[in-house]
Amino acid sequence: MNQIVEPKILKGFRDSLPETETVKKQIIRKLEETFTRFGFDPVDTPALEYASVLLGKGSGETDKQIYRFRDNGGRDVALRFDLTVPFARLIAAHRSELPMPFRRYHIAKVWRGENTQKGRYREFTQCDFDIVGSDSPLNDLDILLLMNESFRVLGIDGVTFHISHRGIFNDFLKKEGIETASADILRTVDKIGKIGEEEVRRLLTELLTAEKAEKVIDFIRPEETNERTLQKLTRFCGRETQNTARLSDLLRMLEAAEVGAKFKINPSITRGLDYYTGIVYETFLNDLPGIGSVCSGGRYDNLTSIYTKERIPGVGSSIGLDRLMAALGELGLLPGTKTGTAALVCLQDERFLDGCLRLTQRLREAGIACELYPEAKKLPKQFSYAETKGVPFAVIYGEAEAASGTVTVKDLTKRENRAEISFEEALAWIKREGR
Amino acid sequence: MNQIVEPKILKGFRDSLPETETVKKQIIRKLEETFTRFGFDPVDTPALEYASVLLGKGSGETDKQIYRFRDNGGRDVALRFDLTVPFARLIAAHRSELPMPFRRYHIAKVWRGENTQKGRYREFTQCDFDIVGSDSPLNDLDILLLMNESFRVLGIDGVTFHISHRGIFNDFLKKEGIETASADILRTVDKIGKIGEEEVRRLLTELLTAEKAEKVIDFIRPEETNERTLQKLTRFCGRETQNTARLSDLLRMLEAAEVGAKFKINPSITRGLDYYTGIVYETFLNDLPGIGSVCSGGRYDNLTSIYTKERIPGVGSSIGLDRLMAALGELGLLPGTKTGTAALVCLQDERFLDGCLRLTQRLREAGIACELYPEAKKLPKQFSYAETKGVPFAVIYGEAEAASGTVTVKDLTKRENRAEISFEEALAWIKREGR
Repeated sequence: MNQIVEPKILKGFRDSLPETETVKKQIIRKLEETFTRFGFDPVDTPALEYASVLLGKGSGETDKQIYRFRDNGGRDVALRFDLTVPFARLIAAHRSELPMPFRRYHIAKVWRGENTQKGRYREFTQCDFDIVGSDSPLNDLDILLLMNESFRVLGIDGVTFHISHRGIFNDFLKKEGIETASADILRTVDKIGKIGEEEVRRLLTELLTAEKAEKVIDFIRPEETNERTLQKLTRFCGRETQNTARLSDLLRMLEAAEVGAKFKINPSITRGLDYYTGIVYETFLNDLPGIGSVCSGGRYDNLTSIYTKERIPGVGSSIGLDRLMAALGELGLLPGTKTGTAALVCLQDERFLDGCLRLTQRLREAGIACELYPEAKKLPKQFSYAETKGVPFAVIYGEAEAASGTVTVKDLTKRENRAEISFEEALAWIKREGR
Repeated sequence: MNQIVEPKILKGFRDSLPETETVKKQIIRKLEETFTRFGFDPVDTPALEYASVLLGKGSGETDKQIYRFRDNGGRDVALRFDLTVPFARLIAAHRSELPMPFRRYHIAKVWRGENTQKGRYREFTQCDFDIVGSDSPLNDLDILLLMNESFRVLGIDGVTFHISHRGIFNDFLKKEGIETASADILRTVDKIGKIGEEEVRRLLTELLTAEKAEKVIDFIRPEETNERTLQKLTRFCGRETQNTARLSDLLRMLEAAEVGAKFKINPSITRGLDYYTGIVYETFLNDLPGIGSVCSGGRYDNLTSIYTKERIPGVGSSIGLDRLMAALGELGLLPGTKTGTAALVCLQDERFLDGCLRLTQRLREAGIACELYPEAKKLPKQFSYAETKGVPFAVIYGEAEAASGTVTVKDLTKRENRAEISFEEALAWIKREGR
């Protein structure tokens, strides 16, 4: 009748089966709880927006990375490619309804038609958190504390936050009289993680005299301690500035919160040509630095300038969830949970169906995630189903159990069996195993 | 410099501010916990797929409701318009990796370019749950139990599940010799909630003799009790069939689970021309039936026929989250929580900044969601911020508190003040209020 259609998916897109999605939801839930504990509230925005709103009026030519098209009403629309632009638009649209400062988080998918080589995906999940409407350094601090806490709750100890300050970089370039080349210098320095110091030096000498290039290389090199790096930055700027003082204050407060050791001043962090104006940061896993930054951001002067004349400064950060999950997988740090189901109630014989249904109901009422196998097949077949799904316990209610008012429980992972125990014992055992 | 772009969004699309998104996340979390407790695992699929995969090869002409376009690689792609088609595709693509029966839930956005009049949106969230790979009536039962439990955990008592059986309807049509008109009859009967019995009768007489039309009207009318409706259906089919026996068994099991009173056999439920073959159901809020079904579904014989020759039957249901939230809002059943933040730590004076930072940290460590106001502004200004955001408590650490090692807590909702209490007392008070 029907022609068979091949069930293929688009390049750069992925299905998420229970094994992956269960873990992803666990991570998202932990992050949400942490964001909430830090006073951040969730928002959501449309996946699809006017292209002019996402790209600005100037963007006549189509960016190859953007999914942009005409909808059935002829509107020029696009899928969001990040969560920052829609956030700026949301603030401008709802300015009068929002508390200021406004702390929001947004965990959602974004789409970019990127080259899919080197493990990049065209659909991926971002976790953004920002505080806007205030210049206060306490907000810089809170974003950094939240980054630290987020990795802590995810059980990732080996992490280093590399911080820098765009204002200090600019002060330095001005002092050296090379600020007119700042865009090119920033873009070049930003690549150091990928191309190395030697290549950065070579590129810089195409822009600057050898002497100035060397000065930039000196400037961006982190010293042994944060204190020394700070001293160097101050020296290279000619004096203590508002910016060096702010960075110094921030480090002092991080140390007072007893998390200072995880933060490293690294003046080579610039975040390229992004809209940042104050502190900027990237996050590297100590055991897998090559995967790149898993959480980046900074302070910006004026997020909403495209939509409103009101100046709204802020500071924020973004976790790339897919890259983080890939890294955790590689490091063996992902939980091995394949399913949320703790127990399979086996149906040995239709005669005990009513009892099995009641048992399932009681287990669920007691908070045990479980299901009843829907057919009275042989037990090994039912166990094998449980094992494929990853369900750790099988609960049996058959002839013997019905006669004695008990249940038999099998730990399918440890191959342990407890025959004809009471319902309460069964419950305690399953719960003790953390399910 | 920049031209200002109006921060407008597309018709039929919405921003979700913290007030709405906080509640939506609470609802989703409760549903996820319930789905998990019933043995369902989450999956996710791409928002964007090949149009041929979503629409089948036959669909040459563009469906006006579908967001369909050519991507930058020239592929004919579309945004998913439901979660059922991608689920079928996922099963066909990953058949060998999945446990069977396979229980999955999927909570995600879908997009349809529908007419936006009468409160319909072009982007909305569906919560689907299905069990595929088995014909067992125990799966029908579990889906219905899960529907009932989902509404219970959401605190919605006044709900009625209207059940019917497409097989019984077909048996009846065959017995009356009018099965050739079945598509038109089903489509007509499906409208009864909107157009009423009189209009259905009129439309049926355009298809059938007056006598047969009256018989259909008789057939679809629910009787006073489920027992009587069942007896009538059996009578209209000429005898007890596999289908009537199955519906009868199902009701018996629902009653054994002590939830039978919420389920009503309503033979006028057909789910139109959908792919259902067994039981079908819709869910109505007793106090707001006019909003339509908030949770619908049924049993299907062969979900994946478009992608594979293997026959994969199943049963499932779908909650329209946006419609449900709109209904709960109208009924005053939505929680009034505007924010997840329980306390604002006020910064009265920069001199006590370190103390305030430590206090914020201790509160967070104790599980209290809180934030520090980032500037030493006058207290009424800080309270007003808390009130706009919906934060119930303010915690003050100033001169007096620093001297006595205490804090002052203000309940901003009840306008209650407890001056200079211990940190532990403060904690207990805030926690007692459920935050």
